[in-house]
Amino acid sequence: MQRIINEPSLVVEDMLKGFERCHKDIIHIDDDNPRVVISNFAKDKKKVGIVTGGGSGHKPAFVGYCGKGMVDAVAVGEIFSSPTAKSFYDCIRAVDQGMGVACLYGNYAGDNMNVKMAMELAEDDDIQVKVVVANDDVASAPKEDIKKRRGVAGEVLMWKVGGAKAEQGATLDEVIRATQKAIDNTRSVGVGLGPCTIPANGKPNFAIAEGTMEFGIGHHGEPGIRIEKLASATEIAKEMVSLVVEDLPFTNGDEVVALVSGLGATPVMEQYIFFDEVAKNLDSLGISVYKSYVGNYFTSLEMNGVTLTLMKVDDELKECMDAEVETMGLTQLRRT
Amino acid sequence: MQRIINEPSLVVEDMLKGFERCHKDIIHIDDDNPRVVISNFAKDKKKVGIVTGGGSGHKPAFVGYCGKGMVDAVAVGEIFSSPTAKSFYDCIRAVDQGMGVACLYGNYAGDNMNVKMAMELAEDDDIQVKVVVANDDVASAPKEDIKKRRGVAGEVLMWKVGGAKAEQGATLDEVIRATQKAIDNTRSVGVGLGPCTIPANGKPNFAIAEGTMEFGIGHHGEPGIRIEKLASATEIAKEMVSLVVEDLPFTNGDEVVALVSGLGATPVMEQYIFFDEVAKNLDSLGISVYKSYVGNYFTSLEMNGVTLTLMKVDDELKECMDAEVETMGLTQLRRT
Repeated sequence: MQRIINEPSLVVEDMLKGFERCHKDIIHIDDDNPRVVISNFAKDKKKVGIVTGGGSGHKPAFVGYCGKGMVDAVAVGEIFSSPTAKSFYDCIRAVDQGMGVACLYGNYAGDNMNVKMAMELAEDDDIQVKVVVANDDVASAPKEDIKKRRGVAGEVLMWKVGGAKAEQGATLDEVIRATQKAIDNTRSVGVGLGPCTIPANGKPNFAIAEGTMEFGIGHHGEPGIRIEKLASATEIAKEMVSLVVEDLPFTNGDEVVALVSGLGATPVMEQYIFFDEVAKNLDSLGISVYKSYVGNYFTSLEMNGVTLTLMKVDDELKECMDAEVETMGLTQLRRT
Repeated sequence: MQRIINEPSLVVEDMLKGFERCHKDIIHIDDDNPRVVISNFAKDKKKVGIVTGGGSGHKPAFVGYCGKGMVDAVAVGEIFSSPTAKSFYDCIRAVDQGMGVACLYGNYAGDNMNVKMAMELAEDDDIQVKVVVANDDVASAPKEDIKKRRGVAGEVLMWKVGGAKAEQGATLDEVIRATQKAIDNTRSVGVGLGPCTIPANGKPNFAIAEGTMEFGIGHHGEPGIRIEKLASATEIAKEMVSLVVEDLPFTNGDEVVALVSGLGATPVMEQYIFFDEVAKNLDSLGISVYKSYVGNYFTSLEMNGVTLTLMKVDDELKECMDAEVETMGLTQLRRT
């Protein structure tokens, strides 16, 4: 295992120390709970608090989206496993200012259970908490079981929209409505070309044979929908665009935000090659790209592969996507 | 070779198409030379033009630092090889506004030769061009041969300083002076834990045995200064800090900008673990970190490893590092 770490069971602790040290102008770790990261801007003005949380190993997700204009507090789990209910609860308490808290997270059993428990604790404190549960991964369940689908890189767009809406001074109900619309308009799919190794295990957590690729693979190596012979960027993009576009469906005349994320070890060069093919496919379908993101936005350690996410946008979502943001994972200037 | 590409010999062409499509709000490709990327902001005001260039495969370097407040034009080479003299020349012509052009690049034989030829061509056009040649890699030659050293991730800080200085309206001589000071105050070293594969070759371009690491390895797999048994993050950081600090030397009371860059496949989690150890070492030496960057700032395709760069800063360099910038690789808000 070729890794730059100390004790494998302490990688999350050690990472958080370095993360806080590097980004102390943007975030801090809660005094009482070392698994809670809080934005320094969370209480700059009275607004709805935005909370998320999830397993580690997906950097910039989740802590990398904590900051100005996006997420106010993040509950941090072990590698690929849910944060505790206590950590979600501590996040909620840390950012509530009386306007309530929107907890925007991905659809995984552990996260669902722990957020539910955290909400019960918050209810005892009279803090109003509402949730949006990301389920953008089209490959993780058929459309008739859409509520069973997992959340993947579409969460980044969900947090951007929710954070911007809260920053505008919207009520909790308004934040939830806009964010739910964002994720309802979002579809993603991933392809895996190589596995990753959880440090505490020391061995790859799944296998992808040389010369093959796995469509629909999950962020934690959850099995995909099919294994195919490794194809060209042109063919991979065509297949992924079709899986995503047909599911919503996105149609001629739609405007979208496109997000291509590497899974960790895929060179950014390849992500741009892939993105160009995606854009050509969208062009031919009459779908126009309003804004695009290419890079390592939601990874799985050193997994090799990419995800494609499309979000259909209207004026409200565009305004949210264009708003200024300052986090480790995404910083955007205000367009003047 | 598990890659998302089309024709291996066309990866640079294909990447540039996706890059321009994604970042059309920041950069464009020159109409006449497809290997020249130009900032859309290059002529927003009269200023010294900032040019760089280098081989591909190092993303965000080099094209990812083209934009507002940093580099105005980038000459793009094939994977790991220099751009042509013509491309450097076309960059110079594209961004000169009569105040001259600062060409800020790394010390490699091909780049030196091609920049020299480009300068001769520019001279015929009465364009004044001056250069700063980055030589921050302490492992690439002994200190008495400092001019033989290669430029590595310190180039990112060099571009930031040069870009900010030009943005301030400084003359060419002032830009060159501040940028030369930046690189003279900068030292880097890298460690490799795994190789990368150039698409057109299809095989790793060097080997690093499992359980070992190579100190001082170059960005293109140039041999390092020693191969050691793979150690902990604590030990690796100690050794790298010592190589960098003793060379300048950085001393008690110095303030530095620290940049930790992954080489491609090293999870960002590990880079934060490593950074925390670096910062502890600097603390114990009485060297304070003014500003820090951790992430994939200068990569070598999917190479596994990290580089450490320190730049000693004074008030002028701090002001340059804090200035607003908008590029694919680095975006910073103005601090108000």
